[in-house]
Amino acid sequence: MSQSSIFTRIINGEMPGEIVYQDDLVFAIKDIHPKAPVHILIIPREEIGMVNEIGQSNEHIAGRLLSVAAKLAKQFNLDKSGYRLVINNGRDAGQEIKHLHVHLLGGRRLTWPPG
Amino acid sequence: MSQSSIFTRIINGEMPGEIVYQDDLVFAIKDIHPKAPVHILIIPREEIGMVNEIGQSNEHIAGRLLSVAAKLAKQFNLDKSGYRLVINNGRDAGQEIKHLHVHLLGGRRLTWPPG
Repeated sequence: MSQSSIFTRIINGEMPGEIVYQDDLVFAIKDIHPKAPVHILIIPREEIGMVNEIGQSNEHIAGRLLSVAAKLAKQFNLDKSGYRLVINNGRDAGQEIKHLHVHLLGGRRLTWPPG
Repeated sequence: MSQSSIFTRIINGEMPGEIVYQDDLVFAIKDIHPKAPVHILIIPREEIGMVNEIGQSNEHIAGRLLSVAAKLAKQFNLDKSGYRLVINNGRDAGQEIKHLHVHLLGGRRLTWPPG
């Protein structure tokens, strides 16, 4: 028996969360610990755990994550000023929730290296 | 008249570069200014300029970038220890080369926030 991820519970309305986008494959919410003026998480409906699990069968979902990132960047007026997308996989990257998510950060200058 | 990007010139053999992967849609090279023990760039053959330009027509290429990231993470023994994927779009993120590329960083602990 496996429990749904916190993200799945949010999109199912079982937990509070600020949903800013949804379609047939992915949805997006605001990060509750924002690290930039705009900090959104883009998440597949399917509980793909991490980047390690992306392959030929779910490439279309991975692609949608990025096209929705572009769409949201425009919606939040980041497309001209700029933004960074980040995906953490596993321990060394500090991935906390085992449900794939793309961080979209913008509204400030982002430094290099990225952590 | 527009000149090919530095990445295109590398994959065409017109400039030196360490190519670590290529298929019909994407290729990957080592970053010449690595910010982690493993630092690879995954790049579409098509000169998509930035995330802003990802949409329905090239989602499949965007998806391939991420599935190849997963493949390379395994090849470079990062799949268990962890890694971070980063895509910079525009000024605030410090995007330097106007040819979309995914940074794959691993081999050390990555801090938060990501820049």
